[in-house]
Amino acid sequence: MTPSRERASTALLTDRYELTMLDAAMLSGTHERDCVFEVFARSLPGGRRYGVVAGTGRLLELIERFRFEDEELTWLRDNRVVRDETLDWLADYRFNGTIRGYREGELYFPGSPVLVVDAPFGEGVLLETLVLSVLNHDSAIAGAAARMVSAAAGRPLAEMGSRRAHEQAAVAAARAAYIAGFGATSNLEAGRTWGIPTMGTAAHAFTLLHDSEEDAFRAQVRTLGPQTTLLVDTYDVHKAIETAVRVAGTELGAVRLDSGDLPVLVASVRAQLDALGATKTRITVTNDLDEFAIAALRASPVDSYGVGTSLVTGSGAPTAGMVYKLVARKDETGSWIPVAKASTGKASIGGRKVPVRGFDRVGVASAEEIHIVQGREALPKGRPLHVSLMTGGVADDRHLGAQGVEAARRHHAIAREELPESAFRLGRGEPALPTEYV
Amino acid sequence: MTPSRERASTALLTDRYELTMLDAAMLSGTHERDCVFEVFARSLPGGRRYGVVAGTGRLLELIERFRFEDEELTWLRDNRVVRDETLDWLADYRFNGTIRGYREGELYFPGSPVLVVDAPFGEGVLLETLVLSVLNHDSAIAGAAARMVSAAAGRPLAEMGSRRAHEQAAVAAARAAYIAGFGATSNLEAGRTWGIPTMGTAAHAFTLLHDSEEDAFRAQVRTLGPQTTLLVDTYDVHKAIETAVRVAGTELGAVRLDSGDLPVLVASVRAQLDALGATKTRITVTNDLDEFAIAALRASPVDSYGVGTSLVTGSGAPTAGMVYKLVARKDETGSWIPVAKASTGKASIGGRKVPVRGFDRVGVASAEEIHIVQGREALPKGRPLHVSLMTGGVADDRHLGAQGVEAARRHHAIAREELPESAFRLGRGEPALPTEYV
Repeated sequence: MTPSRERASTALLTDRYELTMLDAAMLSGTHERDCVFEVFARSLPGGRRYGVVAGTGRLLELIERFRFEDEELTWLRDNRVVRDETLDWLADYRFNGTIRGYREGELYFPGSPVLVVDAPFGEGVLLETLVLSVLNHDSAIAGAAARMVSAAAGRPLAEMGSRRAHEQAAVAAARAAYIAGFGATSNLEAGRTWGIPTMGTAAHAFTLLHDSEEDAFRAQVRTLGPQTTLLVDTYDVHKAIETAVRVAGTELGAVRLDSGDLPVLVASVRAQLDALGATKTRITVTNDLDEFAIAALRASPVDSYGVGTSLVTGSGAPTAGMVYKLVARKDETGSWIPVAKASTGKASIGGRKVPVRGFDRVGVASAEEIHIVQGREALPKGRPLHVSLMTGGVADDRHLGAQGVEAARRHHAIAREELPESAFRLGRGEPALPTEYV
Repeated sequence: MTPSRERASTALLTDRYELTMLDAAMLSGTHERDCVFEVFARSLPGGRRYGVVAGTGRLLELIERFRFEDEELTWLRDNRVVRDETLDWLADYRFNGTIRGYREGELYFPGSPVLVVDAPFGEGVLLETLVLSVLNHDSAIAGAAARMVSAAAGRPLAEMGSRRAHEQAAVAAARAAYIAGFGATSNLEAGRTWGIPTMGTAAHAFTLLHDSEEDAFRAQVRTLGPQTTLLVDTYDVHKAIETAVRVAGTELGAVRLDSGDLPVLVASVRAQLDALGATKTRITVTNDLDEFAIAALRASPVDSYGVGTSLVTGSGAPTAGMVYKLVARKDETGSWIPVAKASTGKASIGGRKVPVRGFDRVGVASAEEIHIVQGREALPKGRPLHVSLMTGGVADDRHLGAQGVEAARRHHAIAREELPESAFRLGRGEPALPTEYV
């Protein structure tokens, strides 16, 4: 058994058919045809008003590690996945193409070309699965997170869903939620890898471990100080609050409620804390919240939210539904030709595209304009949406690591500000901006 | 940037509060109290009739890698997560406890104690998040997969949802689907790491790359042989089939349909293939299938199914909702005492449990019996559900790697055979077996 089941090479995190297509294209000599692959979503899930692009920075790092080392080549040979000639080609594989796309944190709409890969067919086709895995997962989480941030109307939110997601997906989910405006995560690896602030207090097990709730509270306050958050719903909430204030004093940082009928409970907890003189003690709630439950608590004296399950599962839309399609290729004479499939209900729009966000006279976003270009037309008016992500196989450093996450979070906040107010309605409806092909 | 973002150590794939609870327990001296932690689900999602335990083998390997190396300790110190004394304890940490639980592939019901961790509090509490991440994700996928396998009524199924899931979750999803009866996956890493058969043919991009559909089919057949599967819905299905049989001959292995109104389309495709003499050419369909769409195709001449999105997202239930609860601990005198929280709607049942599956006179499973035991009572009648998974921190080899996956797949098939027929209804309803506490 290898020490790590997650390998440094990302080359096998892909579908077998990417390699067999390469194999067949090499035999027909078409693998070197220059191609344009485009990532887009046909629709937004669940009648949402906008989507949030996330995963880009993570993806660029994974593409840089998309290399076929001896171990990968041996496995492919032993399993006769491709011919020997193709294995030789894979041994030298390194993505040398160009990737442009929406900035991480940017909003997207149906048809938005969120990522565009320019490369010979063989180089570009291999990336399909990895590109979609990362963008579909991370964008699904970010899209749900953004709605929760709106619903919270300025109150802080913490991500705490690691236990409801695959252990590595959990790290990516914490990252996506932070980009969309969450303030912290419970996940330590997300703190280490992406520089996201981490938080956490105690579980019911900690109270149950001790001979009494009071013993448990004393142990926690002794270690973490009176500014800690005490979990008060293991037995009886109101008795627990009495104990909590007795143990920590009126300087107690916060109490956490993880069960019960929250609107009613929160009001009575606030009244009790105030009566005990703990007027600055905050109330944090964490009981199976989603954007609708958060919105329903807007009038309650809640100070912060912890969100788990619904966040890491995309609140009903666990994948963003983006696809990776060939939209243009060179023919034998070296001329670009747009291509598109005609499949029932899944037709695509061929050609290279330049997207811009259009604005009305008072500076509110009014349209997602997608210009289908032939050559070097003048840049259309509006805010250009494509930025350079990778050139000649080298990622632009600004998008990587913790600094990329911070940049994406800042950009997301700006892009949201541009939207019309109707975009923040939680109910089902049309996308906040119409997509216009020009 | 480190070469691999996924680290060999799994110790930070956890929630911050697991470490702060340890920190506080060390100060109160309670971290060495012997404890029993239990994993169970309060309910089955979406009115399903049974759940499928998956992830166990993967989890045991991750627990063996749960070690705090210099890099982890430095990060925890720099971020002041716990006190220095606790860091010293973590440096020596190695899980030395005992884990028993349901065999991987086993079925479970509300309250089934699917995993039981016996360890001092400090050792056991640290594993909560990792245990739940793995079991909640993998069991969600296996639960959905098992329903699809029933719906397919003997026809083979292939997993091809990698692009709709986080890139590492995709590998685990392929593994879980295989345990629940899928026959193959498109994911190459799942093939390499877990020994699962891989499959795949071609995407629309491959057809669009070529100057004509015929060129594309010729290239594929030349490389993969006439037994390959040709994708026939890029432009016009019936023209494509004509071309496919002309190019590959009547020995053509299969055609794949990825769009359209399948029940109608499949029948006309079968008629066309037969008329062309390709009577042995199979039809595989892959268009947004879930268990209900698969069941609806039961009367159509489909030969195999490829399932993506709905499988890797748990078909409406992307997480299994299992929790990790302290159910018993020793007190100061060394006596075991059952513990349970009383939180509204989330109460738990304390005490150590021995689960067995009860049967009726004709050998059909009739109940999930959970015996709450005090000491060494006689083993109750029925099929015992707990097996040894880890002893003194060492995993039982039979559950690990590819052999563990094969064993889980075999066991799952046997456990399914025991259920009453009503368990395989797809509609919402009660669990197939009642959970009885004895």
